[in-house]
Amino acid sequence: MAIDRVAIVGLGLIGSSIARAIDERLPQVAVTGHDASDDVRGVARELGLCDGIVDDPVAAVADADLVILAVPVGRMADAAAAIAPGLKAGAIISDVGSSKAGVADALAKALPDHIIIPAHPVAGTENSGPAAGFASLFEGRWCIVTPGADASDEAVAAVTGFWQALGAKVETMDAAHHDMVLAVTSHLPHLIAYTIVGTASELEEVTESEVIKYSAGGFRDFTRIAASDPVMWRDVFLANKDAVLATLQRFNEDLTALQQAIRRGDGAKLEEWFTRTRAIRRSIIEQGQDDAAPDFGRKH
Amino acid sequence: MAIDRVAIVGLGLIGSSIARAIDERLPQVAVTGHDASDDVRGVARELGLCDGIVDDPVAAVADADLVILAVPVGRMADAAAAIAPGLKAGAIISDVGSSKAGVADALAKALPDHIIIPAHPVAGTENSGPAAGFASLFEGRWCIVTPGADASDEAVAAVTGFWQALGAKVETMDAAHHDMVLAVTSHLPHLIAYTIVGTASELEEVTESEVIKYSAGGFRDFTRIAASDPVMWRDVFLANKDAVLATLQRFNEDLTALQQAIRRGDGAKLEEWFTRTRAIRRSIIEQGQDDAAPDFGRKH
Repeated sequence: MAIDRVAIVGLGLIGSSIARAIDERLPQVAVTGHDASDDVRGVARELGLCDGIVDDPVAAVADADLVILAVPVGRMADAAAAIAPGLKAGAIISDVGSSKAGVADALAKALPDHIIIPAHPVAGTENSGPAAGFASLFEGRWCIVTPGADASDEAVAAVTGFWQALGAKVETMDAAHHDMVLAVTSHLPHLIAYTIVGTASELEEVTESEVIKYSAGGFRDFTRIAASDPVMWRDVFLANKDAVLATLQRFNEDLTALQQAIRRGDGAKLEEWFTRTRAIRRSIIEQGQDDAAPDFGRKH
Repeated sequence: MAIDRVAIVGLGLIGSSIARAIDERLPQVAVTGHDASDDVRGVARELGLCDGIVDDPVAAVADADLVILAVPVGRMADAAAAIAPGLKAGAIISDVGSSKAGVADALAKALPDHIIIPAHPVAGTENSGPAAGFASLFEGRWCIVTPGADASDEAVAAVTGFWQALGAKVETMDAAHHDMVLAVTSHLPHLIAYTIVGTASELEEVTESEVIKYSAGGFRDFTRIAASDPVMWRDVFLANKDAVLATLQRFNEDLTALQQAIRRGDGAKLEEWFTRTRAIRRSIIEQGQDDAAPDFGRKH
């Protein structure tokens, strides 16, 4: 299944990065872009994203071999319904949502007669919108493809090859397992970061200005994630509720245990725990999933 | 009170960075280094840190106008006792501990006849040891000085001037307030990061290798802090127990509220919270306390 024409629906950080990556790495592929927002389409045109930015979602996907929905997961169903009349027979519909089981259901319901191969590039920054994207966002990052049981090998191979061409490494798993893995590696970290940044900004004893001033003690790290797109993340937590709540429960158990160790003055338990966690970072760096430079390579 | 000779006791990340910063910015100041560990002293000598590395703590502080204790906060009392016989009259004793009330008490008890001006440079990386330090670590960062009620203005001014000369900005506050501020901006973030990294590495449903592989979804940010020195952090939590437990309680309340919003599907509450936290990061960047580049300036 050759992919000669791609349509991108949703031109935020991820959608616009896909457009830029295609332009750089797959120049022979034609790309049409659409966004439901007039403003976003305007910015996308100014930036020169895609070969054409189209106002009408139906027209945007005409003739596309691959349509990628890059909208918040809560809007996938509407986006799919909006493009349905324009899809050519045999087109592959994919997406970039951070939760997969719910999205797969929504897409299957909205587009019962089409080939749906959900995907999730595990990449991003804290910035949002069409101006925030860049072509190298997916290089060396993983893209998880979650085909349904009836997906054809050819369609899976086409989506896999597309992401590899953009520089990503591709893994395949079922949607339910994806949602559990991402609950741990992405959703829970975001929830915790959002929580702590909110907590810190509302204490009586410590002013917000003090929190900002002395944030280099560790707090500032959490503020990056907590600056991520609010609508996107609202939708992720609603869509992946069960897995998020399950991992949150495990986190709470561990936090209670460490809280108790602090209250009791159990230094041995703390030291043992803190020594164990050190090894994980080494593995992440060894596997090329983070910068080896101290402090994320921040300028000092 | 002129500072012509400095003694640094403890040559890890912070102590060795002070030595390098003095070398670069205060070349006229003589620096003697000491560490209780033979190995660390050996590495410090190989690195050429300080004007001299001295085996005996008593000899190390002889003639020093300023002695800086850069050891884990649980070792401050012992380090102070070890240098006591060598201190010259009028020497200022300072430290770099991340909690201040307990350290101030320990130093006052160990050195009742000396001038003690505790300080805390809010700076660091996840790395430890004499090789991890660098001269610019304190540039643009805050150093909090927490003089006791009876501290002389001259001694406070001397310590303030010293840190400013190393590139830091200096603020003065009482030790109890420092401990509450840092509980929020540093200790709680470390506790949370240590917890979540431990939680993620022990789930049955998701393997450690998956956690590492897909860590770019947010998790990897937490692993940096959770790679910090285990002994240093064990001591911080034991020393600042009350403030840490108080802020942890507030965090737990907020986390429970967000957990409930997820369970109930209350998207409006989530979106409102996530929108509010976004502003904090902007302020931190505006005030020069973090890199403005997306993703901490990581290479993409």
